[in-house]
Amino acid sequence: MVTTAAELDAADPLARFRERFVGADTDLVYFDGNSLGRPVASAADRLGEFVRQEWGGRLIRGWDESWMELPTRLGDDLGRVTLGAAAGQTAVGDSTTVWLYKLMRAAVDHAVRTDPGRTEIVIDTDNFPTDRYVAEGIAAERGLTLRWIEVDTSTGVTADQLTDAVGECTALVVLNHVAYRSAWLADAPELTRIAHAAGALVLWDLCHSAGAVPVALDEWDADLAVGCTYKYLNGGPGSPAFGYVNTRLQGELTQPIQGWMGHADPFLMGPGYTPAPGMRRFISGTPPILGMVAMQSMLELVEEAGIDAIRAKSVALTSYAVELADATLPEVTLASPRDAALRGGHVTLHHDRMREVTARLWRRDVIPDYRDPGGLRIGLSPLSTSFDEVERGIAAVAEALR
Amino acid sequence: MVTTAAELDAADPLARFRERFVGADTDLVYFDGNSLGRPVASAADRLGEFVRQEWGGRLIRGWDESWMELPTRLGDDLGRVTLGAAAGQTAVGDSTTVWLYKLMRAAVDHAVRTDPGRTEIVIDTDNFPTDRYVAEGIAAERGLTLRWIEVDTSTGVTADQLTDAVGECTALVVLNHVAYRSAWLADAPELTRIAHAAGALVLWDLCHSAGAVPVALDEWDADLAVGCTYKYLNGGPGSPAFGYVNTRLQGELTQPIQGWMGHADPFLMGPGYTPAPGMRRFISGTPPILGMVAMQSMLELVEEAGIDAIRAKSVALTSYAVELADATLPEVTLASPRDAALRGGHVTLHHDRMREVTARLWRRDVIPDYRDPGGLRIGLSPLSTSFDEVERGIAAVAEALR
Repeated sequence: MVTTAAELDAADPLARFRERFVGADTDLVYFDGNSLGRPVASAADRLGEFVRQEWGGRLIRGWDESWMELPTRLGDDLGRVTLGAAAGQTAVGDSTTVWLYKLMRAAVDHAVRTDPGRTEIVIDTDNFPTDRYVAEGIAAERGLTLRWIEVDTSTGVTADQLTDAVGECTALVVLNHVAYRSAWLADAPELTRIAHAAGALVLWDLCHSAGAVPVALDEWDADLAVGCTYKYLNGGPGSPAFGYVNTRLQGELTQPIQGWMGHADPFLMGPGYTPAPGMRRFISGTPPILGMVAMQSMLELVEEAGIDAIRAKSVALTSYAVELADATLPEVTLASPRDAALRGGHVTLHHDRMREVTARLWRRDVIPDYRDPGGLRIGLSPLSTSFDEVERGIAAVAEALR
Repeated sequence: MVTTAAELDAADPLARFRERFVGADTDLVYFDGNSLGRPVASAADRLGEFVRQEWGGRLIRGWDESWMELPTRLGDDLGRVTLGAAAGQTAVGDSTTVWLYKLMRAAVDHAVRTDPGRTEIVIDTDNFPTDRYVAEGIAAERGLTLRWIEVDTSTGVTADQLTDAVGECTALVVLNHVAYRSAWLADAPELTRIAHAAGALVLWDLCHSAGAVPVALDEWDADLAVGCTYKYLNGGPGSPAFGYVNTRLQGELTQPIQGWMGHADPFLMGPGYTPAPGMRRFISGTPPILGMVAMQSMLELVEEAGIDAIRAKSVALTSYAVELADATLPEVTLASPRDAALRGGHVTLHHDRMREVTARLWRRDVIPDYRDPGGLRIGLSPLSTSFDEVERGIAAVAEALR
């Protein structure tokens, strides 16, 4: 006997957070918080206030008063609240793609410099496209080789696979914490250990986990990480990404986009680039301050709720979606791990007709997204999604399929 | 006999624009619109609306409905209103520094590929620091040489200097349209012609001119350009920059940060990177949509006022500042061109004590900025600055100097 959505919502200790998001009071079913999170209602006011008071009132003085430090201060907040990263290792700015470029380049340039035999980047075939494209570009420009781990679209990289792939030629391993199609949750501590045992650095892409799944970068002894803030961190379309560089590596690594904001003394403006100490050297141009405003509202909610409680609700939501799919969608296949411990914050259901089903659902204000091949992706943002929404959404999928 | 500020304001055809900016009704004297423009009042509401209606209401559908095209649509608007660039050549996103990296790399990689003897980047010693740092990094990583044009901090690059510097070894020339210290306005058509005659590409940095000084990229036959939008385009602190690639070069150039948004089919998500045709291949990651909202308000004002009228007021404002400085600040030296035709939108006044003078002025709500050596930089944003503000500001400088 399936527990009802109403019972689950009534028992949900985080239910009260839902009303703090724009649009949560409508009938729309939002299954795409893993692509673009809903705005926190206070973010709209906060942006208006920022424009009138901080930007409009403090003008250029804002840089001295707070904005210069905002990329690393907000990075520290992200580190504390969601990433398991001590202060001084995380900075916000640029896009995920630019961070990937900077940190992958920093890593492989360092590896090749210290051991010219390390000429391979290990990456899996179902890694997020931008990660693969960046790695491909860097391999071509630096004369390196990509070693591919073959992963099917419903799983992710296992410890055995990584053990087979790494060795004395490995410069860098690039992995997703949660796979964007399957939601496969990687065993990050173990995979990090395997890469390190082979003498390689690891870069974790946290785009599909940050804010929904606990991350423990310091505990994993991760080297590098990147992630976006517009999915489960609700920063808004194209809000700036973050990068993490473990303290022990900061002095050894340099990144290629040498901009004035990564200089040891940005306002010296003299000849010659001298990288700043610490995390600041991984910043390049003027940081996107306006784009950092909205995510601060979400980060406060995440801290208030606690990332472990968020994960518990995330597991409950995806489990409920799987349970309903099992019970009511006999024609679909689960393309995500059935074991919740191996699954991130979304669930992918496979059927050959899912592309057209998605289009039909959108017309009825039920908004999942579609990923080839045949994947209907149901992203459940723990603080803004109700169990009732899941129930109504899966019912709509059933109807659209028939 | 000096014309009074009141007379100048009364005769100013653009005076009515001032009240459309946040904070223009206060007594504060803002001489730093060339560093961070004031917000247009409608931008605050527009951002709130964007959050509630576009982001909050359309959610992920916003990408399909308009955001995917926004970087190039807004780029086209910038091109039409301020850059003299036909559609299809300009895109908005990233920071100026990242654009510099991508376009300089695209240019030198192309030059070296087609003619391995082209191993030099020509750049001047007073080019904006981030341009110099990026060029320095690229030269080091690609095994190229920087050829420096020596420029003193009160002038800029002349045609004779460039003629001497370029030759068959030149891959790329990097120039500022308006010098950040002196406001020297480069003879862009002539310098572009000289670079082309030597077989080199030219990249124009428009940060200190876009929105205040007419730019005619297509007419100059420019190859590449970058610029920021938070100075005279009032996009807000760290708002995204723009890049321009002349149509005739787009098919030949590729940039190194291969991200999913520059792919020919971003949602194919298949193996292997294929650059998009046209300007889209110069985009890398997810574009910063929220950061593009505020500048749209300003761009509408610029279009309404017209860039030629804006330039006329800019010349009148800087000329008035020079006139007042001549009359009332005998101890300072003009560190900007005296001839308005050779001067951009700001005026730099030199005195050994200007660092401390700037600090004193800030405490009195008179906000210029300071640039070594001894430069008090007075940036006059044509649509938001009044002649009265100039008069009060120069009087405050006189007082602070004594």
